[in-house]
Amino acid sequence: MDKSNLRVNGKRLRMSLEEMAKIGGTPGGGVERLAHSDEDKTARDLFVSWLKEIHCDVTVDEMGNIFGRRKGEKESLPTVMSGSHVDSQPRGGRFDGILGVMGMLEVMRTLHDNGIVTKRPVTIVDWTNEEGSRFAPAMIASGVWAGKLDRDWAYGRTDKNGKKQGDELARIGYKGKQPAKAFPVHAYYEYHIEQGPILERESKTIGAPKGILCLHWYDIYLTGTANQVGPTPMEGRNDTLCSAAEMILAVNRVAHQLGNMVATVGEIQNYPNSRNIIPDKVHFTVDIRSWDDGHALRAWDLLKKEFNIIAERRSTPIRMEETWRVEHAPFNDKLVRRVLESAEELGYSSHYMVSGAGHDASYMNQICPTAMIFIPSKNGRSHVEVEESTWEDCEAGANILLQCILKSADES
Amino acid sequence: MDKSNLRVNGKRLRMSLEEMAKIGGTPGGGVERLAHSDEDKTARDLFVSWLKEIHCDVTVDEMGNIFGRRKGEKESLPTVMSGSHVDSQPRGGRFDGILGVMGMLEVMRTLHDNGIVTKRPVTIVDWTNEEGSRFAPAMIASGVWAGKLDRDWAYGRTDKNGKKQGDELARIGYKGKQPAKAFPVHAYYEYHIEQGPILERESKTIGAPKGILCLHWYDIYLTGTANQVGPTPMEGRNDTLCSAAEMILAVNRVAHQLGNMVATVGEIQNYPNSRNIIPDKVHFTVDIRSWDDGHALRAWDLLKKEFNIIAERRSTPIRMEETWRVEHAPFNDKLVRRVLESAEELGYSSHYMVSGAGHDASYMNQICPTAMIFIPSKNGRSHVEVEESTWEDCEAGANILLQCILKSADES
Repeated sequence: MDKSNLRVNGKRLRMSLEEMAKIGGTPGGGVERLAHSDEDKTARDLFVSWLKEIHCDVTVDEMGNIFGRRKGEKESLPTVMSGSHVDSQPRGGRFDGILGVMGMLEVMRTLHDNGIVTKRPVTIVDWTNEEGSRFAPAMIASGVWAGKLDRDWAYGRTDKNGKKQGDELARIGYKGKQPAKAFPVHAYYEYHIEQGPILERESKTIGAPKGILCLHWYDIYLTGTANQVGPTPMEGRNDTLCSAAEMILAVNRVAHQLGNMVATVGEIQNYPNSRNIIPDKVHFTVDIRSWDDGHALRAWDLLKKEFNIIAERRSTPIRMEETWRVEHAPFNDKLVRRVLESAEELGYSSHYMVSGAGHDASYMNQICPTAMIFIPSKNGRSHVEVEESTWEDCEAGANILLQCILKSADES
Repeated sequence: MDKSNLRVNGKRLRMSLEEMAKIGGTPGGGVERLAHSDEDKTARDLFVSWLKEIHCDVTVDEMGNIFGRRKGEKESLPTVMSGSHVDSQPRGGRFDGILGVMGMLEVMRTLHDNGIVTKRPVTIVDWTNEEGSRFAPAMIASGVWAGKLDRDWAYGRTDKNGKKQGDELARIGYKGKQPAKAFPVHAYYEYHIEQGPILERESKTIGAPKGILCLHWYDIYLTGTANQVGPTPMEGRNDTLCSAAEMILAVNRVAHQLGNMVATVGEIQNYPNSRNIIPDKVHFTVDIRSWDDGHALRAWDLLKKEFNIIAERRSTPIRMEETWRVEHAPFNDKLVRRVLESAEELGYSSHYMVSGAGHDASYMNQICPTAMIFIPSKNGRSHVEVEESTWEDCEAGANILLQCILKSADES
């Protein structure tokens, strides 16, 4: 048969997504499937059982990454790979991550049902703990696999209850034997919801990001003087929450002023956090993203100077830590064009863009030619229970993925 | 003997305070004795045993308030009363509250040792849950006793684990039978650390507050739109933490501009509080205090207007609640002068001032003539582990209390 006429089964894709949405389903219509939780295990078990139904060769590596491999005509050629993650944010959505895994599963099932033989082997992957919301940082297991992060350091990362990632991975039975180490990959595609408002605003079905923004994470710690609020005059206070408030607004303002970037304070801890005590300890985070790494660094330089001035003026000593830095990841131009071409061939509107969110594709991009396929997020919303995409778009994205996989897998 | 020559035993007072500081003592040198905790019970038990040693008639009311009564010559005359509280803030200090209870205990012991007969009965009191840090609001049990708060409402207040105040009071064995209802009191004195920097700055030993500032508590709730930070452009965000930051600075600025008041944001909760999600829910508190109730209300009016403008501009709908309002409490002029006069008689320097902190004396002031005795707080610090006063000052304050009690108790 002419492989270009092959299409996925949209109904079956929807059923897989709905089945997965039950695991950790929340009353608000989202899912909570934190990395290494019981829900994560249940979802993994179901995923593996589905892979076995279509005779995939399933392996689990030391980081719990699950690979399902389908033989190719020329087994010695590097595989074509696609996947994403089954873990979620706390009270997250039903599409983030899982769409890329179920979308690729639907591609594998379509290949299986139609007895398709590809020149190269084809591999589906579920990357462990992409979200990083229980064990920071995000994308840790693809990072270890790609040789960019250390396995034992990853094992030692703790959640807020002091549990270690390595122990929790073993607890759910997904600490595999196979080394978490990159093997040759011919091409990697990741199918994902956009998580932003651009495709919806532009009325396009398929997004082809040219790459992922750089990502800089900082942690700020302020110390002041706690005191009973009533008897302590305004003059001479060292109120860390006031300092933090000025800094939060500085982050917001600098991002607006410089443009071509986003900068956000998403997290704040205030101590002792009692309504009649002047705060004497604040920790908050800064997240800066841009296509231009240097631009992001210049923004941070500006902020750092301003933070120091504020801390000095309010007598609240400051400590700043650089927590994580990922350079911008320009994807493989040929694969990105392939996504756009496939959309045109299948009659879907498409949009050339960037990805603001980090993905396992960032690390894969350092190992092999990589591209992503986006579909619209309703109201641009993600990491929330109301995260939504239409079933039609889910099917469209899976068809693009199918065509891209077929094209890459038949390359010699 | 000439009662005016009577003095407390400073060493014994220090020993009582040191004994109490062991109960819930923290590594940082403070105490943590939250209301209705096991530590609260242990401290109460010790206090009661000490009262029995000096043959006080001990009663516990429905709110757990402990009264120790010493007979007077004329038993039918209303009693003279003094005390404070044995509960503490989380990681609080060794003097706040407990000084007033141990100070009055030392006065009672001194009367006992010297076989002093007073015209009126003399009563020591430990008010339940003055701090309000486990079960809000503060001063709840003196409030019920004074008829200003409802007993069953107080019982139903819950801590962050959902435990009810009434149940916890019963659990520690201090839910007494006697109605928590005001009985006639001739005069009430409360001895306390200043919790502010004024006495230290003025180099005075004894503070005689003319009264307590009014206290207004507000709770502010903002809602916005949570989103993955990376793919969400700066334009069109509804970031509740940015709105809150502007409001926190407004509170600080208005208090500075208007003067004669303090205003503080001590507590903030941010949701989902994840570094890569735009905050969509913030709760924070506002605490406003002034000697002039109308002035405090005008400040709040200004803030309310400004909050609405900020919330509108940032598209983060706002809800504002008035949580607690206590009018300023001008103490009884005769008793306040008595504190100042006693200081002069005993050769201690003194200072006429106001109390910024709320005390059980606020509610007592609505029931009977009331005054307070302050001693300096080192660096003005309180509600923290490093809270400190000198033993000499502790003794000085107890001697003032002794003289005031003797004078009031011999009034016909």
